[in-house]
Amino acid sequence: MAIVTVERKVLQKNDQIACENRELFRKNGVFVVNLVSSPGSGKTSLLERTLEYFKGSLPVAVIEGDVQTDLDARRVAKYNVPTVQIVTNGGCHLEANLVRDALTNVDLRGIRLLFIENVGNLVCPSNYDLGEAMKIVVTSTTEGDDKPLKYPGMFQRASALIINKIDLLPYLNCDVKMLKRNALTINPSLKVFETSCTTKEGIAEWCSWLDSKLRK
Amino acid sequence: MAIVTVERKVLQKNDQIACENRELFRKNGVFVVNLVSSPGSGKTSLLERTLEYFKGSLPVAVIEGDVQTDLDARRVAKYNVPTVQIVTNGGCHLEANLVRDALTNVDLRGIRLLFIENVGNLVCPSNYDLGEAMKIVVTSTTEGDDKPLKYPGMFQRASALIINKIDLLPYLNCDVKMLKRNALTINPSLKVFETSCTTKEGIAEWCSWLDSKLRK
Repeated sequence: MAIVTVERKVLQKNDQIACENRELFRKNGVFVVNLVSSPGSGKTSLLERTLEYFKGSLPVAVIEGDVQTDLDARRVAKYNVPTVQIVTNGGCHLEANLVRDALTNVDLRGIRLLFIENVGNLVCPSNYDLGEAMKIVVTSTTEGDDKPLKYPGMFQRASALIINKIDLLPYLNCDVKMLKRNALTINPSLKVFETSCTTKEGIAEWCSWLDSKLRK
Repeated sequence: MAIVTVERKVLQKNDQIACENRELFRKNGVFVVNLVSSPGSGKTSLLERTLEYFKGSLPVAVIEGDVQTDLDARRVAKYNVPTVQIVTNGGCHLEANLVRDALTNVDLRGIRLLFIENVGNLVCPSNYDLGEAMKIVVTSTTEGDDKPLKYPGMFQRASALIINKIDLLPYLNCDVKMLKRNALTINPSLKVFETSCTTKEGIAEWCSWLDSKLRK
């Protein structure tokens, strides 16, 4: 029982800080996307393609979350956007206070879009509000079509699902129609995109949808 | 600070039950493998190929751990082995007490090999001993070659690494040599296998190694 009580307190504390983060983002006119997925679904590659798309048209910043290393931040920084790496040192998800601390290294004035790439984990990050406008869940075709049913929390809390690595479909036993059906069973209001960061298929659709959201 | 204290207590309690599980396995002569990976790396497919290999020669049982659904247990049960599904209802990893409770549904007498397929999560399950003889970490080529560096805990605690989906290598930007080098940097004593559950490449090598371990 103790762990439940403490967890609830942790979540309450997190939600309070997330609320403060959200207010800070609103004041600065920054639209914030919390990018979540399993390890290796292609969050960073998707981010790279997305940064290419918005280059020159929209000021973007990135917060990278990883258990260890700054490999992702180094990949993203090549696109000349303000980038901060959070290393959780074993922690399985980002929390609102980590984002708040990271924000002391980003000048939000003039930024219109902030991506927070969460730790690769399809379970834990779903419970932690960071102050984002929306969670985007990425799943790759190589992970199979049953993931929304097996890890429902993340799909329930996401605004959009990006089915990545569709260029590999000819070599896989993955039924994309079934994957979509499973995802929409869990969350009927989920917007679904199919992308390949290799062929760039679907990247423009995803980015223009995101663009329309942040201009609302 | 409160959460740290409670977590330590939870881990101590877990280790105590894991110790009891280990003693139970020893008494019954059961070799226990804790199978861990990201969601979609192919743990269940690997288990299916492994069950095929040992069919008729070794009595095997399986405990399946999932956040939701009994999809994996249904896949495995087709191989006519005793199978128990643990549904964690949102929990991000298996704990020793869940395994202990599941064991009330398995007659360990006569079983030589027990697989525990953990929740798909490359972070949290690494901290929880279940009483197993060894952890086996599975990573798929589609996840890229940097995962051991980014999620070191799991690779440090594993006895072997199975690099799965090697049939997809021609279509990927994944350097298997680099992946191995990264894994061995994190854990130099890691035994490494390369497998494909589609072509069955490497399955016999992995299974005969496992066979040699449990006959020691």
